[in-house]
Amino acid sequence: MARTWATFGVDLHLEPTGPGVRRGLTDALREAVRTGRLTPGTRLPSSRSLAADLGIARNTVADAYADLVAEGWLTARQGSGTRVAPGAPPTPCGRRGRAVPGAPGRSAQPRREPGRPAYDLTPGTPDLASFPRTEWLRAARRALASAPNEALGYGDPCGRVELRTALAGYVSRARGVRADADRIVVCSGFAQGLKLLGEVLARRGLDSLAVEAYGLDVHRTIAEQAGLGTVPLPFDDFGTRPDVPAGVSAVLLNPAHQFPMGGVLRPRRRAAVVEWARRTGGLVLEDDYDGEFRYDRQPVGALQDLDPEHVIHLGTVSKSLAPGLRLGWMVLPGSLLPDVVAARRAGGWSGGVLDQLTLAEFITSGAYDRHIRAARLRYRRRRDALVRALAERAPRIRVTGIAAGLHAVLELPPGTESSVVRAAAWQGLAVHGLSRFRHPRATTEPLDALVVGYGTPPDHAWAGALDALCRVLP
Amino acid sequence: MARTWATFGVDLHLEPTGPGVRRGLTDALREAVRTGRLTPGTRLPSSRSLAADLGIARNTVADAYADLVAEGWLTARQGSGTRVAPGAPPTPCGRRGRAVPGAPGRSAQPRREPGRPAYDLTPGTPDLASFPRTEWLRAARRALASAPNEALGYGDPCGRVELRTALAGYVSRARGVRADADRIVVCSGFAQGLKLLGEVLARRGLDSLAVEAYGLDVHRTIAEQAGLGTVPLPFDDFGTRPDVPAGVSAVLLNPAHQFPMGGVLRPRRRAAVVEWARRTGGLVLEDDYDGEFRYDRQPVGALQDLDPEHVIHLGTVSKSLAPGLRLGWMVLPGSLLPDVVAARRAGGWSGGVLDQLTLAEFITSGAYDRHIRAARLRYRRRRDALVRALAERAPRIRVTGIAAGLHAVLELPPGTESSVVRAAAWQGLAVHGLSRFRHPRATTEPLDALVVGYGTPPDHAWAGALDALCRVLP
Repeated sequence: MARTWATFGVDLHLEPTGPGVRRGLTDALREAVRTGRLTPGTRLPSSRSLAADLGIARNTVADAYADLVAEGWLTARQGSGTRVAPGAPPTPCGRRGRAVPGAPGRSAQPRREPGRPAYDLTPGTPDLASFPRTEWLRAARRALASAPNEALGYGDPCGRVELRTALAGYVSRARGVRADADRIVVCSGFAQGLKLLGEVLARRGLDSLAVEAYGLDVHRTIAEQAGLGTVPLPFDDFGTRPDVPAGVSAVLLNPAHQFPMGGVLRPRRRAAVVEWARRTGGLVLEDDYDGEFRYDRQPVGALQDLDPEHVIHLGTVSKSLAPGLRLGWMVLPGSLLPDVVAARRAGGWSGGVLDQLTLAEFITSGAYDRHIRAARLRYRRRRDALVRALAERAPRIRVTGIAAGLHAVLELPPGTESSVVRAAAWQGLAVHGLSRFRHPRATTEPLDALVVGYGTPPDHAWAGALDALCRVLP
Repeated sequence: MARTWATFGVDLHLEPTGPGVRRGLTDALREAVRTGRLTPGTRLPSSRSLAADLGIARNTVADAYADLVAEGWLTARQGSGTRVAPGAPPTPCGRRGRAVPGAPGRSAQPRREPGRPAYDLTPGTPDLASFPRTEWLRAARRALASAPNEALGYGDPCGRVELRTALAGYVSRARGVRADADRIVVCSGFAQGLKLLGEVLARRGLDSLAVEAYGLDVHRTIAEQAGLGTVPLPFDDFGTRPDVPAGVSAVLLNPAHQFPMGGVLRPRRRAAVVEWARRTGGLVLEDDYDGEFRYDRQPVGALQDLDPEHVIHLGTVSKSLAPGLRLGWMVLPGSLLPDVVAARRAGGWSGGVLDQLTLAEFITSGAYDRHIRAARLRYRRRRDALVRALAERAPRIRVTGIAAGLHAVLELPPGTESSVVRAAAWQGLAVHGLSRFRHPRATTEPLDALVVGYGTPPDHAWAGALDALCRVLP
């Protein structure tokens, strides 16, 4: 039953039981700001008094405030308390997109917008300042010049054949995926791929999806909206244990680089999950979101190679180029292909063809490989700087998950995670605690840690971000 | 119960009752070709013998064959019968996209690919050869040069604010829509907008959507997949009668230009449907797919202007620029906005930002208006040529729906529609009969007619297409 309360003059709704109190409060507050019920500048009650009103732990309120400060909805300043950010959008479709204008890399100090953190170390976004604008435009020009007219029509529900062909070559070469253009379906990012697969699998009678104990809540939401409950897998010192519960016939994994924990699925476990899929007719959804970025040894090949009939490989350019392109792909088993194609043919799934044609040209011209190589080097330098800075300034902090990707996990002394996240928010540093990535029903012991994304800040802001991070660490 | 049969060695499944026999047969045959169960070159049994095997009317088989010839899956040639087209894709994600390569407008004769019609007069696609490639690239360059880095991130689930702002200005100026950027949600074409609204409305408890007696079956499919049944509205000599049945609280209409009948919703009926929505709290989905193209008088303004709180205006560039861009928009009532935004925020809906930024630049620079004006002139000339040619060579054919848009309805003598469509297919002319757009449960008297799209052929092929059309008319 939802509880309504009217503290500071707005009605919020909160589910007061279960593991979702913090998220419920965060969502309710965000919604109140978004819909304009809480207007910019409004001062929120102290976490102590709101917690007392609600009968919940003070830390829960403080954590929710910190999350919303990190997201830019609230501001927290010594002396003026927690307020609705001046730049917070008054309506659902906000104008926040305009909030950080101007070309990158021109000034040494990042411009601070009201309600925006000075440094963003939340994981999930690459360095957008290094998006290869000139090369991309060049590829777009070539692609559009050679595209047949019919490419501009309603087209193939699987996506442009030029891109599927280029991707088939790329993923087999770079990721060891067994791929044929005819088995690839282009989608608008991983999220759309998951949504589509969720709907197709739900229509086939699936009702739950096994997921890792740590992961993105947006993926759980997408699965749930498609009608699939999620069941967390066990997690131990060696990472995710792919012990899929009986009755569950699909599992979503990050075999090459667990998000956010950063590990790689061990060879024996890779074999075990494929063996499970074969034995039970199950499916593995392989979310290969940043497989290109591995620094200390050769990339880990795709799980799909072990059994293309039971593993769906999902890739994206969201980390390698930019999430805003909304370009991803699925390499599908033959058994699933007709249902996926039929769903897409039924309408509403297709994305724009121009970026598809451009990416095809970008890949086949070699520009993609060059970009990945340069980005890998840049991120590796950042990672090395992070590890060095922590060794010098916070030597007691253990850093893990650094062999690959765009983020690291900084283990914190037990019980300190939320206070560190709060302290960071006060310093204008957006950073996420590990707990927000933990499945609400995960059985593994909670761990206090920060998940530090080192992709997001532009190069010129990286040293400052690192400094701010070190200041808030215990 | 589905019936299985094994004529010519493949198992097809067909629902032998109800209005869907022809469609069921068409779908089953298409699927058999698509999945490779019927391989290129395979000769199909004569319509007479297949009809006898199946116990259905011979015309139904002949119509299904003609549809598939028009779509390029089959070929039909005097002397060699009906065969699976050589170019037909062996797998679901085909290589058909490659079938018509080369730059447009270079040769006077359209290249004829195996399995492709020589002339395509099916409605729904604009003249892709006149897509303004150079201006589009110029806008893309400007847009990307001035875009802030954060535009390349995950971004606003409503779409880029630059585009929403540009669209708000455009639709209010050009279509009389009462629009604010904060009420606009960008979507991947009309189809995605309908899919999203269908899901949101179904979640609100809606179980059926009233639609016009004539329309696109893909829209019905999208609604049905979202959980909404469709109920056809009555249709009389003055067009659609918006008598929404009791218990139905949403209606999908083409007020400015009915597809495919071509009429405009009469003023009294416009008022009546808005009055119905107000009285019952209902919603009108206004599909304004080609409102820009009106030739003989001023454009008909948007219905949404009468009541923005009960009418959702849906626009698209699919007819004005190209469907392949997959760019559309919804202007939403305040009551619906939070649910739509929440659905999009939950993930899987967003499209690429680069085309969004480019379209914003294209609109604000004036290039869009220039393109629309030139396209309007070009289509008007084609329409005039069509009307002239018919008056000379098929004077008994009544042409309707010509005041606007990219297609016309050619009324045929009763009982001749399917034979004309078949004859056209034999001549390599793809054209649709009106019956395929009729709602299976429509109560209006069926009308024999062709729906002739004059947007698709490139300019150089238009005279030849017109000639081919006149040859097949009775």
